[in-house]
Amino acid sequence: MQKVKNPQKNMSCELSPYPKISLPKSQARSIINIQDRKIGDGYFLSIAGSCAVESEEQIFQTASAIQKSGAQVLRGGAFKPRSSPYDFQGLGEKGLQYLHAAAKNYDLICVSEVMDTSDIQLVAQYVDILQVGSRNMHNFSLLKALGKINKPILLKRGFAATYHEFLLAAEYIAHNGNDQIILCERGIRTFEQETRNCLDLAAVPVIQEKSRLPIIVDPSHGTGKRSLIAPMTKAAIACGADGVMIEVHPTPDAARTDSMQTISTESFHQLMKEINASN
Amino acid sequence: MQKVKNPQKNMSCELSPYPKISLPKSQARSIINIQDRKIGDGYFLSIAGSCAVESEEQIFQTASAIQKSGAQVLRGGAFKPRSSPYDFQGLGEKGLQYLHAAAKNYDLICVSEVMDTSDIQLVAQYVDILQVGSRNMHNFSLLKALGKINKPILLKRGFAATYHEFLLAAEYIAHNGNDQIILCERGIRTFEQETRNCLDLAAVPVIQEKSRLPIIVDPSHGTGKRSLIAPMTKAAIACGADGVMIEVHPTPDAARTDSMQTISTESFHQLMKEINASN
Amino acid sequence: MQKVKNPQKNMSCELSPYPKISLPKSQARSIINIQDRKIGDGYFLSIAGSCAVESEEQIFQTASAIQKSGAQVLRGGAFKPRSSPYDFQGLGEKGLQYLHAAAKNYDLICVSEVMDTSDIQLVAQYVDILQVGSRNMHNFSLLKALGKINKPILLKRGFAATYHEFLLAAEYIAHNGNDQIILCERGIRTFEQETRNCLDLAAVPVIQEKSRLPIIVDPSHGTGKRSLIAPMTKAAIACGADGVMIEVHPTPDAARTDSMQTISTESFHQLMKEINASN
Amino acid sequence: MQKVKNPQKNMSCELSPYPKISLPKSQARSIINIQDRKIGDGYFLSIAGSCAVESEEQIFQTASAIQKSGAQVLRGGAFKPRSSPYDFQGLGEKGLQYLHAAAKNYDLICVSEVMDTSDIQLVAQYVDILQVGSRNMHNFSLLKALGKINKPILLKRGFAATYHEFLLAAEYIAHNGNDQIILCERGIRTFEQETRNCLDLAAVPVIQEKSRLPIIVDPSHGTGKRSLIAPMTKAAIACGADGVMIEVHPTPDAARTDSMQTISTESFHQLMKEINASN
Repeated sequence: MQKVKNPQKNMSCELSPYPKISLPKSQARSIINIQDRKIGDGYFLSIAGSCAVESEEQIFQTASAIQKSGAQVLRGGAFKPRSSPYDFQGLGEKGLQYLHAAAKNYDLICVSEVMDTSDIQLVAQYVDILQVGSRNMHNFSLLKALGKINKPILLKRGFAATYHEFLLAAEYIAHNGNDQIILCERGIRTFEQETRNCLDLAAVPVIQEKSRLPIIVDPSHGTGKRSLIAPMTKAAIACGADGVMIEVHPTPDAARTDSMQTISTESFHQLMKEINASN
Repeated sequence: MQKVKNPQKNMSCELSPYPKISLPKSQARSIINIQDRKIGDGYFLSIAGSCAVESEEQIFQTASAIQKSGAQVLRGGAFKPRSSPYDFQGLGEKGLQYLHAAAKNYDLICVSEVMDTSDIQLVAQYVDILQVGSRNMHNFSLLKALGKINKPILLKRGFAATYHEFLLAAEYIAHNGNDQIILCERGIRTFEQETRNCLDLAAVPVIQEKSRLPIIVDPSHGTGKRSLIAPMTKAAIACGADGVMIEVHPTPDAARTDSMQTISTESFHQLMKEINASN
Repeated sequence: MQKVKNPQKNMSCELSPYPKISLPKSQARSIINIQDRKIGDGYFLSIAGSCAVESEEQIFQTASAIQKSGAQVLRGGAFKPRSSPYDFQGLGEKGLQYLHAAAKNYDLICVSEVMDTSDIQLVAQYVDILQVGSRNMHNFSLLKALGKINKPILLKRGFAATYHEFLLAAEYIAHNGNDQIILCERGIRTFEQETRNCLDLAAVPVIQEKSRLPIIVDPSHGTGKRSLIAPMTKAAIACGADGVMIEVHPTPDAARTDSMQTISTESFHQLMKEINASN
Repeated sequence: MQKVKNPQKNMSCELSPYPKISLPKSQARSIINIQDRKIGDGYFLSIAGSCAVESEEQIFQTASAIQKSGAQVLRGGAFKPRSSPYDFQGLGEKGLQYLHAAAKNYDLICVSEVMDTSDIQLVAQYVDILQVGSRNMHNFSLLKALGKINKPILLKRGFAATYHEFLLAAEYIAHNGNDQIILCERGIRTFEQETRNCLDLAAVPVIQEKSRLPIIVDPSHGTGKRSLIAPMTKAAIACGADGVMIEVHPTPDAARTDSMQTISTESFHQLMKEINASN
């Protein structure tokens, strides 16, 4: 493998800075199979669920609702990366058990975040897709270790990572042996404070020009505001996203984390109807 | 009029930081009439044309093409704000004359930028909409003076302006007497350098929540790359933009300014067809 | 004059993107004479005063105090660029008259901001240095017009302007005939909101490598917090700044504008003593 | 322990968002003892050395030189967090052995980065201070694990982390039992690309107002340019930094990593002389 410093100079496959995940002219975009669901190259994946798994009841209610609305994947955090050590850190393994059971019960697949190399085996036992959070996109030890397992990885863009760094992070996983990677644009940090992040939708076509991997959009973290979820979901689909990930809760105002960016199961149902009607 | 420091606390009309342009619950969104075209509250406006007016022939060709594709407004810069004094500064009044003639000839209306209070009368003589560029959004003397004329203003967001500052800039114009204002999201400056700017589409629903004014999107400056114009135009429409402004040139590679973000008349025609088909 | 697109490629004088203000190897740094004061190439200039001229009494008190502390230039805004049209806009010509009289009375020179080409003659009548504010750094019409007068210009860096754009803005003035330019670093806008801006002190040595013009630092706007003025002033001097500009008020808590970043005359006196002791 | 959401509201110790590391009025700043060296509350610590340990000879040469110049701590990376999997990843344990031997031989103490919880024991065996890199500041699993060891931690600010998040990251370590924490400002990511990062020196007085922990400055990563190391080191000291960390190499042009921001042993010697002369 040849080392190339400047990604702009030559994008042919062998000389790409991302030889494992780049998109050579002759090749098709990747389709990733997760159980009997697909994402990429025309297959769209809807992920929904709460920021954190809060209780068995809450995640079962959520699973039931999103399944009825047509979502395919249930999300729920068990290990939560929180800025403060005094904030709720998630239910841990108990949370993974609830998530797994809820997904199974409603014929969904599930995704949850892994924060450390030492937790990979535990998390992989319960989920179908392992998520790398935005704060860990530059955690190269974690990326390398995830390259050695045989489950799809959902890699979120670091909130201050360039496209180039984002793709290199995916390349770390692929280079270590696992190319079942779903990228996720979730907003970047800018001077604007009225929204939690600036959802950078241009990432979708930019990444699709450079890589064969699917890319989804998270309008919840990408805006931080309920009222912006629906319009930004529609915009994400319009510019070609391969999927979306939306925070949904039976009673959003009571959600323990990310309440302001979580929509109700009713709002999610309505949004899914509108999306399907226009496609 | 009561002065309110904190825009979040109370958004009722009298107490809004933007009393002239805010959106009280009982009120409809504004429709702005420009000649016999309309924008806002459901009326969509397509603006297209070259970054700079380069010659009579070039702007007539452009006008002819965009009119056939269904655009309603011809853009073309005569006074160009350029980072370097050694870069092409525009054709000045001659450019305005060509622009005006081309628009008239093809039954279009036209828009061009005004950079200084002392040029307002001159520019207003030739164009239907006066544009305030991103670099002048904080030029309060210019905003005040534009509040005193009776022509629509196209106000572009400063590339590092918050939503709050953007709306206050519009309020400057409205407070001085002119509320025919069209806002324009055109991308903000971030750490990412692969695109020229980060097109902040969340601005569309955010601004529409706070103001009754129409807001359009400029995907050309907002991305700086030809291949991103089409997907980002579609995304802008999907999240509710009241219009778009796109840089189009008969021979983009030969454009004197902004060549990399300018699409051909053929690409524009194709894009307009796709947009109309899906609406 | 040859036009050069890429500033990094060749920095020899004729090929510099800033031929009028660059620093050829053989040349000394510029010294700018303002009345009998000097700045640049070893001459240090202290500018102090209130954000806005509020009254005759207030500016005379300020002038008296800063003169005793050893400052050479009195600042005070008469035309204030304010984000909201409902905020205090300055006293206008009356403010300039007070400022001029106070400076004269205490044997100081004075500086105030000009916001529009149509105000240049008025402002130039009263002040020794004309300031271009951060929000107008990209106001090329203003820069061009200031190139045609014969008074020193204090050019503040745009809060989102690159070094390259900052130097090109100075080049606009110099190219039009006036090379008495003092640059001013005043902080840039970032994601951090605890300080008003991020004071980018590396601008001092970077600009001094590229240009022969003097550069000063404004720690008041650069931080937005009183307690940071003293340490950042000392840091500015340590890295080679040719001067500082500090907001000082007899009763800072009562200042009509920028109160939080304004220090008392006593604090300023103490700071000047510490600076002089260590040099 | 009471959970406090808003750090601005109340900074008394029990209600601080950082109860373990805050600075109550009655308390002195922390002094951290590392072998027989001290840092904090007046004690200044100089850290120098190469980005990566490249060979036994190279690190011994570096150690010898920096010791003669008066530095107290030798730095050298053995596990390198690199954006690309195809870049040099460091010598691993072999590098730690060389670093340890070189430090011991020249009566220095040493610091090196740890990237993963599973490497903590290995790294702690060889170094006196364990470094958390900028890319791992949000790696909460790593922070928690470092809270359980009994060695000083050098915590670098995330390149897009707010002051608040930076302090919370330190609180994670302290909350888990280890309050021997040295903070390090190393520049933040902004729109400016001529420097590698924007060195945010205001972080020094801001952090010292909020926390009793010492804070040092890294002008190498903070600027990315050799010519800026000396002026920014002086600025860091002038605004109160408790130490500096500088990249030094016997032949900087041949350094395998970070060559452009690494100064020669001769330049470092000269800088240390100038610093000591002015204090």
